[in-house]
Amino acid sequence: MKDLANMIIPTYDDVLAAHARIAPHIHRTPVLTSTYFNDLTGAELFFKCENFQKAGAFKVRGACNAVFGLSDAMAARGVATHSSGNHALSLSYAAGRRGIPCHVVMPRTAPQAKKDAVRGYGGVITECEPSTSSREAVFADLQASTGAEFVHPYNDPRVIAGQATCSRELLDQVQDLDAIIAPIGGGGMISGTCLTVSAVAPGVAVYAAEPKNADDAWRSFKAGHIIADDAPQTVADGLKVPLKDLTWHFVSRHVTDVFTATEDQIIAAMKLTWQRMKIVMEPSCAVPLATILANPEVFRGRRVGVVITGGNVDLDTLPWMKG
Amino acid sequence: MKDLANMIIPTYDDVLAAHARIAPHIHRTPVLTSTYFNDLTGAELFFKCENFQKAGAFKVRGACNAVFGLSDAMAARGVATHSSGNHALSLSYAAGRRGIPCHVVMPRTAPQAKKDAVRGYGGVITECEPSTSSREAVFADLQASTGAEFVHPYNDPRVIAGQATCSRELLDQVQDLDAIIAPIGGGGMISGTCLTVSAVAPGVAVYAAEPKNADDAWRSFKAGHIIADDAPQTVADGLKVPLKDLTWHFVSRHVTDVFTATEDQIIAAMKLTWQRMKIVMEPSCAVPLATILANPEVFRGRRVGVVITGGNVDLDTLPWMKG
Repeated sequence: MKDLANMIIPTYDDVLAAHARIAPHIHRTPVLTSTYFNDLTGAELFFKCENFQKAGAFKVRGACNAVFGLSDAMAARGVATHSSGNHALSLSYAAGRRGIPCHVVMPRTAPQAKKDAVRGYGGVITECEPSTSSREAVFADLQASTGAEFVHPYNDPRVIAGQATCSRELLDQVQDLDAIIAPIGGGGMISGTCLTVSAVAPGVAVYAAEPKNADDAWRSFKAGHIIADDAPQTVADGLKVPLKDLTWHFVSRHVTDVFTATEDQIIAAMKLTWQRMKIVMEPSCAVPLATILANPEVFRGRRVGVVITGGNVDLDTLPWMKG
Repeated sequence: MKDLANMIIPTYDDVLAAHARIAPHIHRTPVLTSTYFNDLTGAELFFKCENFQKAGAFKVRGACNAVFGLSDAMAARGVATHSSGNHALSLSYAAGRRGIPCHVVMPRTAPQAKKDAVRGYGGVITECEPSTSSREAVFADLQASTGAEFVHPYNDPRVIAGQATCSRELLDQVQDLDAIIAPIGGGGMISGTCLTVSAVAPGVAVYAAEPKNADDAWRSFKAGHIIADDAPQTVADGLKVPLKDLTWHFVSRHVTDVFTATEDQIIAAMKLTWQRMKIVMEPSCAVPLATILANPEVFRGRRVGVVITGGNVDLDTLPWMKG
């Protein structure tokens, strides 16, 4: 890692170290293809299925890299984060594999199913009020009393190096890719993709796919500086979070373009993928396919890796059933 | 094939010929494992994922074997069947690959989605009234006017030899299996499994899994002769059809045991599989897992192949959402 004006930037050597470190704890997920989607898009699509990953999402790569990279002394105090999504599950899973505590600060109003899922992976929940000020205060108290290591969901060089192992596998599994497309929320997966691709396959384009309703990355990319959303609402609930300095470093330097999709396009692409590929995946994972379908001229005739980021879905409330 | 009292019984040579014949037209589907389900059952489970198969179900194996085994003269007149399920889709797909007509007789009251799906694979639908007498009359007229070859969904030696290729792949993909379990409706998949296992791995137990609400195979197996159900009602709608002479031949000689599961057990096992394995599969496919969970002492400590038979589900009406 190199220190760039006090920001620690992970390098490809960190990715190689991460991959060796996490390999015993993750799946090398399969790449699926679909004649139907190839015919529909005119592209050759290769779906990297992180919905089949441990804990149900790619986030376990970064979480495992952070947890297993700690010294024994640091590890003994545990890890901590604030998240009610896949990062909380993944960090709980990783900590459980190492046998150390994982503290998760969650609003007391979070759905019971999400609390149960975190506890199912061994995480210990500390509840806060549903406000940023309460969350920050509760988290500071927790860290002070436990000394637990904070692992940010994406703006952390250890996490980005871990996520970068996904595209490293994909480039090994599929030869001669022209592009990789992945969803963008906070930018952890896209930053990892940029890190790997810029190091070992600089001719491969990197596209970021984002809900139009939470298009801070698109607006930031066009403006040349970070622009945050104000409480965005989208079915792709994993993608509401904003870019931060470390992920912006990669997005601004290495992303080829950012595409957006409407809520209707995302839901339609999600349902179509379930129907035709027979896989359960989150709404966020449908954003890349939705943008490919909306921009066929960009992708036609090209070999495109598509990252299916996770499969942790509430099966009782599927988005095409609403209303 | 050998003629046993006028019933043509497929042999393992027919399975080998079928596999060579259909290989260009089907997927060699993957085998998935799940730490979660292994911990839950105490068994080692290997899920053979025919939900990822062409046309979404294992039935394409038998359909392709029938279609591609026809002489050019017979093929030119096309094939025909009566089904509103996966066999109709599969036969339409197979006929389309050979460039010949596929005629499907369906009740005019069948769901529009099922008609659309058959037409989507190129099948030509002839509607009948929703009664057995109308179906038989319409089908006889159709066959007389077209000369199309009737391909029964399961009571056909070509179909059984085709389905038998599934367990041939599974035995190649997983070493040292102790048992294979698959759903039983008409008995095509189970008969194919019996055919392969008895020929090449006679020490492997074959279990048939059936909805308690449509337990004709269980009752037949216990009684020693075919007992048909009277209009069974089950969420596992692919398993309502009865055994016939050819499938009974295999079931009665080679099946180790038949287990049943209640509707609630089937729905719970289906939802749990979607949640933990992130795959879309039909209610019928959940019956084996439901019976494993209900009979843990039979399976604990054993290496068990579980056939996931298909993934063609109506995503708008999932069974755990009813009521």
